[in-house]
Amino acid sequence: MPDDDPYSAEAFRRNGRAVVDLLADYLAATFRSDGKVLDYSPPTELLARWPPLGVRDDRRESLAELIPRLLADSHHLHHPRYVGHQVSPPLPAAALAELVSALLNNGMAEYEMGPAANAIEKRVIDWLGVVLGFDSPVEGMLTSGGSAGNLTALAAARQSIDGLDVWQAGLTDLPALSILASEQAHYSVDRAARILGLGAAGVVRAPTDAQYRLDPSGLEEARLRAQDSGRRVFAIVGSACSTATGAFDPLEAIADYAEEHGLWFHVDGAHGAAAALSPRYRPLVAGIERANSVVVDAHKMLQMPALVTAVLFRGAGSSSRAFHQDQSYVGFRNVDDEYPWWDSGLRTLECTKRMMALELYATLTQHGIELFRTYVEQTFDLARTFAGLIRAAPDFECAVEPQANIVCFRHTPAGAEHDLDGLQLRIREAMLDDGGFYIVKTSLPTGIYLRTTIMNARTSEEDLRALLQSVRSLAASCR
Amino acid sequence: MPDDDPYSAEAFRRNGRAVVDLLADYLAATFRSDGKVLDYSPPTELLARWPPLGVRDDRRESLAELIPRLLADSHHLHHPRYVGHQVSPPLPAAALAELVSALLNNGMAEYEMGPAANAIEKRVIDWLGVVLGFDSPVEGMLTSGGSAGNLTALAAARQSIDGLDVWQAGLTDLPALSILASEQAHYSVDRAARILGLGAAGVVRAPTDAQYRLDPSGLEEARLRAQDSGRRVFAIVGSACSTATGAFDPLEAIADYAEEHGLWFHVDGAHGAAAALSPRYRPLVAGIERANSVVVDAHKMLQMPALVTAVLFRGAGSSSRAFHQDQSYVGFRNVDDEYPWWDSGLRTLECTKRMMALELYATLTQHGIELFRTYVEQTFDLARTFAGLIRAAPDFECAVEPQANIVCFRHTPAGAEHDLDGLQLRIREAMLDDGGFYIVKTSLPTGIYLRTTIMNARTSEEDLRALLQSVRSLAASCR
Repeated sequence: MPDDDPYSAEAFRRNGRAVVDLLADYLAATFRSDGKVLDYSPPTELLARWPPLGVRDDRRESLAELIPRLLADSHHLHHPRYVGHQVSPPLPAAALAELVSALLNNGMAEYEMGPAANAIEKRVIDWLGVVLGFDSPVEGMLTSGGSAGNLTALAAARQSIDGLDVWQAGLTDLPALSILASEQAHYSVDRAARILGLGAAGVVRAPTDAQYRLDPSGLEEARLRAQDSGRRVFAIVGSACSTATGAFDPLEAIADYAEEHGLWFHVDGAHGAAAALSPRYRPLVAGIERANSVVVDAHKMLQMPALVTAVLFRGAGSSSRAFHQDQSYVGFRNVDDEYPWWDSGLRTLECTKRMMALELYATLTQHGIELFRTYVEQTFDLARTFAGLIRAAPDFECAVEPQANIVCFRHTPAGAEHDLDGLQLRIREAMLDDGGFYIVKTSLPTGIYLRTTIMNARTSEEDLRALLQSVRSLAASCR
Repeated sequence: MPDDDPYSAEAFRRNGRAVVDLLADYLAATFRSDGKVLDYSPPTELLARWPPLGVRDDRRESLAELIPRLLADSHHLHHPRYVGHQVSPPLPAAALAELVSALLNNGMAEYEMGPAANAIEKRVIDWLGVVLGFDSPVEGMLTSGGSAGNLTALAAARQSIDGLDVWQAGLTDLPALSILASEQAHYSVDRAARILGLGAAGVVRAPTDAQYRLDPSGLEEARLRAQDSGRRVFAIVGSACSTATGAFDPLEAIADYAEEHGLWFHVDGAHGAAAALSPRYRPLVAGIERANSVVVDAHKMLQMPALVTAVLFRGAGSSSRAFHQDQSYVGFRNVDDEYPWWDSGLRTLECTKRMMALELYATLTQHGIELFRTYVEQTFDLARTFAGLIRAAPDFECAVEPQANIVCFRHTPAGAEHDLDGLQLRIREAMLDDGGFYIVKTSLPTGIYLRTTIMNARTSEEDLRALLQSVRSLAASCR
């Protein structure tokens, strides 16, 4: 196989079938929980199994030969006992759509670079706008990841400040600017503020309640504190939901506060905005339709492969104003004078991008939207069931009641009171080495907790019962 | 097909084969130049063929049903007569690797999220470092696109300024900061400066020579001009090559200037850094190994699907210093104290990202590196051949002699002297509607030119002769 003509359609057909077969075998095995979730090796040990690339004379290996090695050294997200990070085990159909996208490679920055891709992106953005309850017209685009999405939205917010033109003037000599966000906001909000030139004080922290939701009663104090130190607060971020515990900030109250004080209201809905798909869970995001901007990661709760992030803006013009530039070699055809949805490069920090809307459009039309609602409800429900199991166990406790599909808990066996944090860390490490489950950890004001996110539609209550049992036995062996 | 179990491995196998077959048929047809390069429809007309997504009750369509419609409304980059934008017709094997990446979806931000993916990324970065001639140790990461790459590098540059800690302090009250770049630098450099809070004067323009290369003799005047207006120049960007004409800035002279004045030297090698693969064309990028940072888009001259961008840093620590933050829920395992290549989220503006290194690693090991050198030489050579054809024709002229695989030219038939710009624009539009070729346009100080980039290994001299003939007949019909 290595000596095929690299540009042969028939070699693509033959190799493509072999790749599909290997991946189908992998899917079948992981779905039935064969093998470890992750067969962990330390970085340097694993690296030794992946030879350096030579500069001239190089080793040949076909993709079909490489895949088994890759599978052995990768994480198996489709394994029902992967309950770690908020990364989706992608819908198999979405991965196939990505193959189409990768081969066609229509670049998207302007309409001509990817006509269908741009039209499909508009349909996806419009659909998300309806799902979230936005009034028309909604404006927006897809971008490469939630961090880029938050940066895009906050750049637009920075450009919306009355009387300032940061895009033109730069920040030197302007008043220092700050964004209000809770202590639990994702680190990409802080990172975006720093990239935007606002520094460490670019995010002013509002306190949270006992459920780690932003506490609106603390907003005024936080804003005044910033103001007293000479900073102008121009935006407020609501998390829907937070990363550590899945807490949904009270978006209605934040929207009220933002309106009252003329602040840009951004919702980081990377993980939880999908709750809007479910009539039962929609109340968690009530008020999201009042945001000036919302970020949604389709590679989290919409079961897409990374990265497919939507940035939605309420009201026309916000995003194009934020990124206005002349680009003489990009050929924008003056078709008519409506909102130019088709030239997405005008409105993002990206130029060329993948035709990423295809994955979502194709899976929505293939499987139907009901599948996505069911997925949200099933994973959110199962987190509540899991919390019930934890509550019922005398040797476990939850950090908080789960609001989304994220559960933080810890093992509290008798006699371990003096070193609960150390115990959780040892359990986490032992579980990583064991490989029967994959979970992560988080640090909260009350201590260190084991953290699980239920991302797999095949994860069952039985798996979660087994997880608690596994924690018990690993703890017994590592205390 | 629409009613398959969405999580069935066997449905994935069956549908996957159908998708591969459709794409193989597409490849075979486009490689033999069947049909139009792009069957252009205006945005609103095309959009009508892509129905909105319903919120509840929705239309079903399998991916295999959707693909033919998608192909009809998309650009066909594998068509040898696509000679437009700098977007690669991806190697078919790279698209298959992307399918693997999409299904496995190992998220990359930390080692545990994608062990093999992180190791492979290190191998790719190390290889590129050797190709570019960097001394070890090279540091770097892959990121989602050249714009994100330039932003990442320039954020690191901003953080490298002696005596300033912009990441901590923010820009207010600091001296105004500027980056030196030529008038031909890609718009993402200006965009990055504005995102970083430097404003429109954040890029100080150095003049170019008649070949649109940065003219080093103009650097001091430009820097002093910025200094006189109260700005501190901290970085200089060399383009390798420019987007409009493919001009390579003189990197050695820029490196000398940067050293002399203590400036961060960034090379935007998105398109042309790959010249380093060819002994014949390597002189175009002489001095690139002296840069503090380099951006390389593998989705341009390394034949990858978008987006695969490498950001390389000379010297350790530059990138981690630029993005330092605490992220308590990300579990960095303290394995040993060497440079933590395995936790790439520490060093980029991204968090979750695709396992994008796989495409490059897999195609390099499958096809061998020689294929990539050949590709660079073949496309660069063919541009020179094309320029020769243009020079030999009495009714055509080149804007400049091509340095890369980008050729800007215009049609100058007798009697059209009074409206050459208008003629080129009309030709471009007529060609878009005709669909026999795809080319773009660019605006240069001497006027408007037709612009071609030879990205397809199957494009021949015969195709380019036919292009000139097509320009002639379209011009005759639209004058």
